[in-house]
Amino acid sequence: MKLPYLAAFLFCLATAIAAQTPPEAARKYTAAHRAELVQQFSELLSIPNVAADPGNLKRNADLLAAELRKRGVDSRLLSLPGAPSVVFGQIDVPGAQHTIVFYAHYDGQPVTPSEWDGGSPFTPIVREVNGEQRIYARSAGDDKAAIFAQLTALDALNAAGIALLANLRFVWEGEEEAGSPHLEQIFNANRDLVHGDVLLVCDGPIDQSGQQTLVFGARGDAHLEITVYGPHHGLHSGHYGNWAPNPAMMLAQLLAGMKDEDGHILVPHFYEGIEPLSAAEKEALTHAPVNDHMLMNAFWLGHVDGAGAHLLDLINQPSLNINGFSSGQTGASAVNVIPPAATADLDLRLVVGIDWQEQQQRVIDYIRSRGYFIVDREPTQQILLEHSRVALVVRDEAGYNAVRTPMDLHISREVIEAVKSARKDVVLLPTMGGSVPLGAMERAAQTRTITVPIANYDDNQHAANENLRLQNLWEGVETMAALLDMK
Amino acid sequence: MKLPYLAAFLFCLATAIAAQTPPEAARKYTAAHRAELVQQFSELLSIPNVAADPGNLKRNADLLAAELRKRGVDSRLLSLPGAPSVVFGQIDVPGAQHTIVFYAHYDGQPVTPSEWDGGSPFTPIVREVNGEQRIYARSAGDDKAAIFAQLTALDALNAAGIALLANLRFVWEGEEEAGSPHLEQIFNANRDLVHGDVLLVCDGPIDQSGQQTLVFGARGDAHLEITVYGPHHGLHSGHYGNWAPNPAMMLAQLLAGMKDEDGHILVPHFYEGIEPLSAAEKEALTHAPVNDHMLMNAFWLGHVDGAGAHLLDLINQPSLNINGFSSGQTGASAVNVIPPAATADLDLRLVVGIDWQEQQQRVIDYIRSRGYFIVDREPTQQILLEHSRVALVVRDEAGYNAVRTPMDLHISREVIEAVKSARKDVVLLPTMGGSVPLGAMERAAQTRTITVPIANYDDNQHAANENLRLQNLWEGVETMAALLDMK
Repeated sequence: MKLPYLAAFLFCLATAIAAQTPPEAARKYTAAHRAELVQQFSELLSIPNVAADPGNLKRNADLLAAELRKRGVDSRLLSLPGAPSVVFGQIDVPGAQHTIVFYAHYDGQPVTPSEWDGGSPFTPIVREVNGEQRIYARSAGDDKAAIFAQLTALDALNAAGIALLANLRFVWEGEEEAGSPHLEQIFNANRDLVHGDVLLVCDGPIDQSGQQTLVFGARGDAHLEITVYGPHHGLHSGHYGNWAPNPAMMLAQLLAGMKDEDGHILVPHFYEGIEPLSAAEKEALTHAPVNDHMLMNAFWLGHVDGAGAHLLDLINQPSLNINGFSSGQTGASAVNVIPPAATADLDLRLVVGIDWQEQQQRVIDYIRSRGYFIVDREPTQQILLEHSRVALVVRDEAGYNAVRTPMDLHISREVIEAVKSARKDVVLLPTMGGSVPLGAMERAAQTRTITVPIANYDDNQHAANENLRLQNLWEGVETMAALLDMK
Repeated sequence: MKLPYLAAFLFCLATAIAAQTPPEAARKYTAAHRAELVQQFSELLSIPNVAADPGNLKRNADLLAAELRKRGVDSRLLSLPGAPSVVFGQIDVPGAQHTIVFYAHYDGQPVTPSEWDGGSPFTPIVREVNGEQRIYARSAGDDKAAIFAQLTALDALNAAGIALLANLRFVWEGEEEAGSPHLEQIFNANRDLVHGDVLLVCDGPIDQSGQQTLVFGARGDAHLEITVYGPHHGLHSGHYGNWAPNPAMMLAQLLAGMKDEDGHILVPHFYEGIEPLSAAEKEALTHAPVNDHMLMNAFWLGHVDGAGAHLLDLINQPSLNINGFSSGQTGASAVNVIPPAATADLDLRLVVGIDWQEQQQRVIDYIRSRGYFIVDREPTQQILLEHSRVALVVRDEAGYNAVRTPMDLHISREVIEAVKSARKDVVLLPTMGGSVPLGAMERAAQTRTITVPIANYDDNQHAANENLRLQNLWEGVETMAALLDMK
């Protein structure tokens, strides 16, 4: 090859390298390191991360802080006594115009190992399902996937020699699944560290169509646990049946009155105060895929609630869900008894305009309107004898409100543009159905939030056999690379 | 002492011995042997006797057959493959006019050891409660008490030299708590052995007033297990709440429609066919103690079902009881999920005139009327997709009907008289609330039944911390002695 040709070739090569976009760099990197990445992700997933096990939560936090340091990120733990630490990382770029904060969480929902195929939520395993590889473990999707994608995207950008342009912050929480009771306090104590132009909440699943999704808000969340009382101890259902009130029946009657058969909530005032969607938000919803029929098939559902409304419209409404109820025994251990009590756990999801504590109060007021005397601790014999019906209602104090960031803010448009550089089709949604404590983050970090999920919708989040489609991980690394390299 | 005086003394002594009634002999005997009797009863209670443990059921049966033999009773096991044996004992008295059959059962309800104080239902323990001694163990009241009282009464009569006057039969079953699925077949195969003028069902608790009770019938019993379906697997309650139907709510709505707030059953036709009480039965009820207020205090009940009717009237009606329901998780392990299914176990008690299978069918017809497609096995994806609501209803096949023996039969009057010789106050009830498979016994043994309970009403029968008040045991031995010595 003659010299001028060689010079021209080298120039083109250099240009090609320079022209490699962050998503392209990420794609090459993950393609070249798949086995090794799956192994590293498995190691992260094998550390138990449930609230009942603070020792292992600490192991997760220490490991993640070390992983950030390995990549040259200034990292530390932001701690409060009695709470899992927030893993914090900081990259400052001289002359940067923006500071982008990446939120995710390393804790997972409680587990019932016997419900998992294989019996262990913390022994990750890759299985092929319908020709796709998925990794199974607690938090595979929710939410260690996001953390691992960010770490891997940093490696990919570094390997390709792509410079970072903005200041970056990593804020990885350890008690999101417990309702983030200390996050606001930790943010307030570290306001300068966590403040940025936008806080990207990297959590939750993408649209069921499989398209990358950006979500500009999340429903709030509040819980109530309701217990109603029958006889002081289990009574023979023959000798006292028809006479001693059955608490399971009382609870059934109470719960049944909360919804009609279409799922419309009958608790008085439940829908009052909802802030309507803007024109831009309504417009975005009309472009979003309609997956309802596909989902009914996937979930074996012969009918759905909502009187014909679409899923995406329904999650812009507040909800009331029975997480569980129990009374006496069922199945092989059922006995002929009038049980002493019956309990239900309710999950209330909220939309912008409704306060979480007021929503709890509306349910409590409804219970009272059904003739119940409400107590907040185990009732005494005297209280039970003095009132025909008594309900113990425990308000979970870790609730929070919904928030929504306008889609047409300058920073919103920049984030949309970055993600569109990584993925061809992007679904824009005003609200996700799930909840993240966005309001507390926004107040404490004085910023706005946009949610960037990467997990497959069918990841069994919060249930047994949680999993992540590996293809979602690889594409998630591309999306994260684009966002890490924002201006 | 001079001879005439000595002769007079000996004559008086002999007269006193001869004049000793069976209840008096029993009272003297138990008073003289209390510690020893408690020890022997404890040994019997320490052998586990639940259906899931056939090996130990067999140990119970072998021991009881041996105890009968020790007392000179011709005894054997009446067996069928796959079923616990009936312990049978026979005493023939030359020239006897009557044959009296004593039924009891040696099996107990399933146990959940963690719910018991002390943690073991098969380590009997005597505790003093409000100045009374009680023995705690599974079956202390239901129903080893009756068996042990009969064995002890035989010993007492023997010790006092009191001759038996009637032929006696002992029939002690081992699967009453499982619904006696084989009892009729065993009786049919041994009809000559179990036939008598009356079959005394020695089971259940006495009246809550503490007075000895005779009951001339028992409610029948039938079970149904109902499961309704939500999504195929647990779904995130945020992402799908408001859209994916919640099976706990569906089940609550279904159950709530079965009763009004007074406990009146709304299942169509549920009360149809009831055979009214006779004048004698109504009359007996007017003399029965009214314990309702005392029981409400004892059970910490601020209200009762039945719109003001008394307990004793209400147990002459059919009942519908939720033994238990469950869906998802509650308490510390509750997660934010739409559970895949919800299950309730129903116990239907029946009175004379209502067929148990027809009563099950009435409930099934009601479920269907609420829009459910009924299946009798786990539904497939296709079935779930083709029907908006699907309910799996499992009919327990071990149900049976109620029976009542008229109180004015000759043999009824003789039994009443014998028991009144032992106890001053005797409550006569047409029907007990609980169920015993009396109909099968009556058909197969071609006899009538009268129930003679001895346990205290507050024996926690069918629940944790089952117990027997020791005073009930001693009085029960007196009652049994009177019945064993009937003409």
